[in-house]
Amino acid sequence: MSGWLKIVGLGPGAETMVTPEVSAVLAQATDVVGYVPYVGRVPARPGLVRHGSDNREEIRRAEHALQMAADGHRVVVVSSGDPGVFAMAAAVFEALENSAPETPDWRSLDIQVLPGISAMLAASARVGAPLGHDFCCINLSDNLKPWTLIEKRLRLAAEADFAMAFYNPRSKARPEGFGRALTVLREACGAQRLIVFARAVSTAEERIQVTTLGEATPDMADMRTLVIVGSSLTRCIQHAGDPLVYTPRFYAPCSVPSETVS
Amino acid sequence: MSGWLKIVGLGPGAETMVTPEVSAVLAQATDVVGYVPYVGRVPARPGLVRHGSDNREEIRRAEHALQMAADGHRVVVVSSGDPGVFAMAAAVFEALENSAPETPDWRSLDIQVLPGISAMLAASARVGAPLGHDFCCINLSDNLKPWTLIEKRLRLAAEADFAMAFYNPRSKARPEGFGRALTVLREACGAQRLIVFARAVSTAEERIQVTTLGEATPDMADMRTLVIVGSSLTRCIQHAGDPLVYTPRFYAPCSVPSETVS
Repeated sequence: MSGWLKIVGLGPGAETMVTPEVSAVLAQATDVVGYVPYVGRVPARPGLVRHGSDNREEIRRAEHALQMAADGHRVVVVSSGDPGVFAMAAAVFEALENSAPETPDWRSLDIQVLPGISAMLAASARVGAPLGHDFCCINLSDNLKPWTLIEKRLRLAAEADFAMAFYNPRSKARPEGFGRALTVLREACGAQRLIVFARAVSTAEERIQVTTLGEATPDMADMRTLVIVGSSLTRCIQHAGDPLVYTPRFYAPCSVPSETVS
Repeated sequence: MSGWLKIVGLGPGAETMVTPEVSAVLAQATDVVGYVPYVGRVPARPGLVRHGSDNREEIRRAEHALQMAADGHRVVVVSSGDPGVFAMAAAVFEALENSAPETPDWRSLDIQVLPGISAMLAASARVGAPLGHDFCCINLSDNLKPWTLIEKRLRLAAEADFAMAFYNPRSKARPEGFGRALTVLREACGAQRLIVFARAVSTAEERIQVTTLGEATPDMADMRTLVIVGSSLTRCIQHAGDPLVYTPRFYAPCSVPSETVS
């Protein structure tokens, strides 16, 4: 049987959010490749080798996966959420393009990307519909781009009045950046703007906080938190005892203030 | 049994992209509510009433769903893709908030949003990973916002060098807007910028076209097309005979030109 490579998304955590097509390729795989905690979400079984690797090993991991597939293995590269949003799909294609001259067998490989429920969509669903109007999605890590670019994008996104979803807001290696981002956002959007901290959605460690930029502090986020900042029209209403955050589909000056934010 | 309301995403079309949690609530529902073609994706069965309604009926449909749930029905509101991205979730919350004084029973309802694979994620996966770096997502319909705001957002998104995903690029009722959008994008991003037309991904009518803004024409999109415009770093390589489009994770000035676009 000839090899193939599937780059798949496992969704945010719950088994019930893994799509059937992803479950099907995991059942056929000989090898699963990815960051240790994501590989750990795929149950062990006879005939399956699980290759967990460290964070920041993306290119080496991608090359390993490509070579195993070229050698005839049925390889699944797993990401949390969706593989195309700040995850392994781009890393595999970087490895594929950059190694092209030396690895002609990689260029005819059967490669497919299978989408997953992204953290952004899961977080949005959990609190209501904050991404119900135009929005943007920014990775706040400055590992792969300069901070100046992040700050420029924050200011332009605020000027466009996008809702904003932020990945990788804060980690132990980057404790300072998120505080700077909050300062920029407070200047650009004002202290009353809504912000949602959605940590580990759909897992046992899930924690949701809805507050305002004026009240937000950097320690509300960690590396498992997806942060959403509303547009000027994003509203918070109380529903059945919980805050419900949504952005209306239409765009018109906001006349009625939101209900109390808890 | 008391009623509930679930607002769910059916994904882009393929059954294999419907999440198990969505399938489970559809199996428990007494009523399914939505736009006719989406309701048609839920198979008929005894005990299930399917309420298909016309496009642009969102608020009336949302009120109907809320009232049935308040009357004790188990109601599922279906959207294509993800319900939180230009779909029914925001419409239900608008109806909920705006009718609040007259409908106190709606405010204690069990309401939940269950995410789905959005058209944007499915289209991105189908062609590679064009949304692998920061991006924005804009609804090009001017039914619910002024064209001036759309144009402003396009120009700011280009200045931020976001990749861009566009919903509702063109319909019979709005034949002109998409041509104007292409003109703005060509001015702001240049004729060489990559653009992807991904129509009806994962269905029998799927059609993918990868080209440049210079070559793109308005008729390449219809109301079933998700359009993606790359950032300045988005690349197209040939892989196994197909164009593969991806945006690298890192941000650095682009020195190597993309391979030929087919």
